[in-house]
Amino acid sequence: MIELEKKSAFMKGTGVGKAMDEAIIHEGSDVLLFLDRRRTYIIKTKKREKFHTHKGFIQIDDVIGNRYGGRVLSSIGFEFVILKPTIYDYLKKARRSTQIVYSKDIALIVTYSGIGPGSRVVEAGTGSGALTGVLAHYVKPSGKVYSYEIRGEFLETARKNLKRFGVLNFVELKNADVILDIFEAEVDAVILDLATPWLVVPNAYEALKGSGCIVSFSPTIEQVVKTVKALVENGFVDIETTESILRKMKIKEGATRPETLMRGHTGYITHARKTY
Amino acid sequence: MIELEKKSAFMKGTGVGKAMDEAIIHEGSDVLLFLDRRRTYIIKTKKREKFHTHKGFIQIDDVIGNRYGGRVLSSIGFEFVILKPTIYDYLKKARRSTQIVYSKDIALIVTYSGIGPGSRVVEAGTGSGALTGVLAHYVKPSGKVYSYEIRGEFLETARKNLKRFGVLNFVELKNADVILDIFEAEVDAVILDLATPWLVVPNAYEALKGSGCIVSFSPTIEQVVKTVKALVENGFVDIETTESILRKMKIKEGATRPETLMRGHTGYITHARKTY
Amino acid sequence: MIELEKKSAFMKGTGVGKAMDEAIIHEGSDVLLFLDRRRTYIIKTKKREKFHTHKGFIQIDDVIGNRYGGRVLSSIGFEFVILKPTIYDYLKKARRSTQIVYSKDIALIVTYSGIGPGSRVVEAGTGSGALTGVLAHYVKPSGKVYSYEIRGEFLETARKNLKRFGVLNFVELKNADVILDIFEAEVDAVILDLATPWLVVPNAYEALKGSGCIVSFSPTIEQVVKTVKALVENGFVDIETTESILRKMKIKEGATRPETLMRGHTGYITHARKTY
Amino acid sequence: MIELEKKSAFMKGTGVGKAMDEAIIHEGSDVLLFLDRRRTYIIKTKKREKFHTHKGFIQIDDVIGNRYGGRVLSSIGFEFVILKPTIYDYLKKARRSTQIVYSKDIALIVTYSGIGPGSRVVEAGTGSGALTGVLAHYVKPSGKVYSYEIRGEFLETARKNLKRFGVLNFVELKNADVILDIFEAEVDAVILDLATPWLVVPNAYEALKGSGCIVSFSPTIEQVVKTVKALVENGFVDIETTESILRKMKIKEGATRPETLMRGHTGYITHARKTY
Repeated sequence: MIELEKKSAFMKGTGVGKAMDEAIIHEGSDVLLFLDRRRTYIIKTKKREKFHTHKGFIQIDDVIGNRYGGRVLSSIGFEFVILKPTIYDYLKKARRSTQIVYSKDIALIVTYSGIGPGSRVVEAGTGSGALTGVLAHYVKPSGKVYSYEIRGEFLETARKNLKRFGVLNFVELKNADVILDIFEAEVDAVILDLATPWLVVPNAYEALKGSGCIVSFSPTIEQVVKTVKALVENGFVDIETTESILRKMKIKEGATRPETLMRGHTGYITHARKTY
Repeated sequence: MIELEKKSAFMKGTGVGKAMDEAIIHEGSDVLLFLDRRRTYIIKTKKREKFHTHKGFIQIDDVIGNRYGGRVLSSIGFEFVILKPTIYDYLKKARRSTQIVYSKDIALIVTYSGIGPGSRVVEAGTGSGALTGVLAHYVKPSGKVYSYEIRGEFLETARKNLKRFGVLNFVELKNADVILDIFEAEVDAVILDLATPWLVVPNAYEALKGSGCIVSFSPTIEQVVKTVKALVENGFVDIETTESILRKMKIKEGATRPETLMRGHTGYITHARKTY
Repeated sequence: MIELEKKSAFMKGTGVGKAMDEAIIHEGSDVLLFLDRRRTYIIKTKKREKFHTHKGFIQIDDVIGNRYGGRVLSSIGFEFVILKPTIYDYLKKARRSTQIVYSKDIALIVTYSGIGPGSRVVEAGTGSGALTGVLAHYVKPSGKVYSYEIRGEFLETARKNLKRFGVLNFVELKNADVILDIFEAEVDAVILDLATPWLVVPNAYEALKGSGCIVSFSPTIEQVVKTVKALVENGFVDIETTESILRKMKIKEGATRPETLMRGHTGYITHARKTY
Repeated sequence: MIELEKKSAFMKGTGVGKAMDEAIIHEGSDVLLFLDRRRTYIIKTKKREKFHTHKGFIQIDDVIGNRYGGRVLSSIGFEFVILKPTIYDYLKKARRSTQIVYSKDIALIVTYSGIGPGSRVVEAGTGSGALTGVLAHYVKPSGKVYSYEIRGEFLETARKNLKRFGVLNFVELKNADVILDIFEAEVDAVILDLATPWLVVPNAYEALKGSGCIVSFSPTIEQVVKTVKALVENGFVDIETTESILRKMKIKEGATRPETLMRGHTGYITHARKTY
């Protein structure tokens, strides 16, 4: 606290007062209870409730009024850290009706798409809404994600996930087939995670503004070859396909090494830009 | 154009009119002249000027009034595409006083930091301002990047780059040493790309809000081992170190394969979260 | 058979007659029963016995007299291929008292060591004898592997494995500590797979002939750093450390991609040559 | 020398006497002059000659009579180590009429082929004879490599390389097309490094003994897909395709990291075994 006061002279008008209030956990806030990297739980806090884990239960009343970054003991004495969920924490905990895209790939998809606050983005398919949520996180509050999904039954799961992520207002969910039509025009980016991206390329072209980006994620080489061919034929340039291999490290003095287990492959990411 | 009219009924109030105007290149606009992936140029358009390339010169008057995604011929008949530079295009073309962080790594740094529109971020060192610019791109318009650099002579280059990227308003450049002090408090993230990140960990802890993220980029294993040790000792949890290996693919029917040349290593990315 | 006869004119004196006899499975021969890549079994054939698998039992009398590459049906109709075990098949099936070195790493260890038929090689530690067996395979019949192991209880397992591999005659097993002494001199290569290779470097230097190779396998970076330091200080040159990352591919028209699961890391291989 | 005498009691009959004589460089011996990892030269020693390098010339008379692992000074004082070339040193220095296979890939090809001293191996195409030479190194002295090449002009270079490697006696070079015919039968392995391996699969099947191995190296995915299809259709089992990614490490206390530059891709290795 002394340190904070020391700083306060420098911070006039920087919103620290508001930040301090936001640092306190109120009833109804989402928290990430963290025991270790493998055992984490996102819950919405409710007074007088208990949250049960394999390491005893946690009194939610001990969480409310605490601050993010604080600690709480379970009924049998295990210490949990109370974190504030990021969009990627939500993603890992999303209800899944489909395989979801990994953070390492989302990171590159966002990068290659060139989007940012204010961007208008078409995405297909919605699936569980995990990628949708991250896109919305980056284009909010003035941008919008138009997310297409032909399997109507998935949209309800996606809607619940997006609501939980806190980004539903920045998404328009559409039960429609991007292969048949894309209803938007002059969008900044089209992002595809579906089985036959090459069939979407003509409509993506139409929907994009000039110089706008298409980014497609596909697990197999054959999908990539067909998609690149369609991009070439439909007036896209700056076509590139990459694969991101993420290597986790075990860092410990005297025992430092890459992790033994590794995700060998998730998919290829192809991106390009529209020209006239 | 017919397609655009067909769509117009769907797009009332979606800002397409504004988008259409923004699609036209005005004098003073930045454009990326694209011949192929290896030969691209970012220039600010000015009437009656010529831009000289190894493939002849381009009349800038042919560019102004054209639209992004359009094409222009050089004096000896080579076709250039006129693209709108993204933040990553600017990054590749940034004036460099230092080695700059690669897009593949920036993508993960942004992801692990959890930042988005509105975030307040401390970054050090500024270097050429490349990473600074991308961070600003994602936190704008309501967020801010506080970027520290001890080598005063680099700040002028960084300022020029950030101005060119169009994000200078969202950055506060500071000629100061983060190892001695960080003047902000309750920030969402601290992002480090400097030689001795472990020495910054105590100040980063003080500056961060509870549950806030620290992300550090380092080329060598020894830097990582020291940084992880400092994070453990200073109350951080959820500590993870990863390395991103980007594999570019050559996609061509009958000749598909990973590229022969590859960046073998850039650096390790360590991230963690503050607890009390 | 017709094809073989057609060839016979070309093959006088090439030992095909002998090869034809060796193609027949006799009682007491080892065979690899292969159902698919995950379900394989090495057995020694014995008349009137049955071999039980999850897919029914196999009458060994159906195997004896058959030829390598032939097929046999289990009692419930599953088809097994009868293969001749290679040294690497034996390695995968070796009785293990320790973690054994992977084929991808053995391949590089053999390569960097420069050994071949006739080479004299010191190896430590023996462990389960898997690497020992492969080394013996390549130096036989005129070469020799001197294999050191301080844990006497492991040597019995190693001996059994080497006998089964058919290479025991080309190995001298030693219950001794290479850190204390290496009894051979003027050897072609010293190969190390133990916890503190840097402590062996002085004795390895003494044992090697001039220009001879040392190759060391270690899982952690810290082991490698210490070993390289010891190599520099002890008159070795041409020092190089590499890591082999093996990527398995799923090859299927329309669904080609790297495998999802992957061994992320096994160890680093350091090699160098002795100078005076 | 004292140490060697101390050892001598242990080494009766181990051929050390012969080894000691072989340790001396005679006229006509090949030596590898080593300045650093990037500057190495293989030469045949001849009395009264000079060998010129960018770091001055070396008097060959200073090399003859020296021992392998010894050192020699150039005319301007640079120290060169005199090493004994391994088969892989020769490979790196081979005269090239074609792209040659990398050591990391040869290591796996040898492993998957299961060959060793005494094996009979068919190989195509010969190219510069680099892979041929390594195969001969491992099958000698009782085995044989039958190496096919349709481009007659390459065979002369291959012959010179194999002679220099010291393994020409263990190779039979053939100016013939493996797609049309393979003249051997009951061979242990068929190893392919040519543009259309799938066209060779039927002849490879015929030439192999039962349970014998085929190993094919191809740069592109499409080659691999066709080859695997042909293997399935021609009675091969245990089919697997892998890619070896070799990561070189820069090991230096305080600056340890993977090398910046890396070979991104050389080729895929497919192996399988013949069944009846």
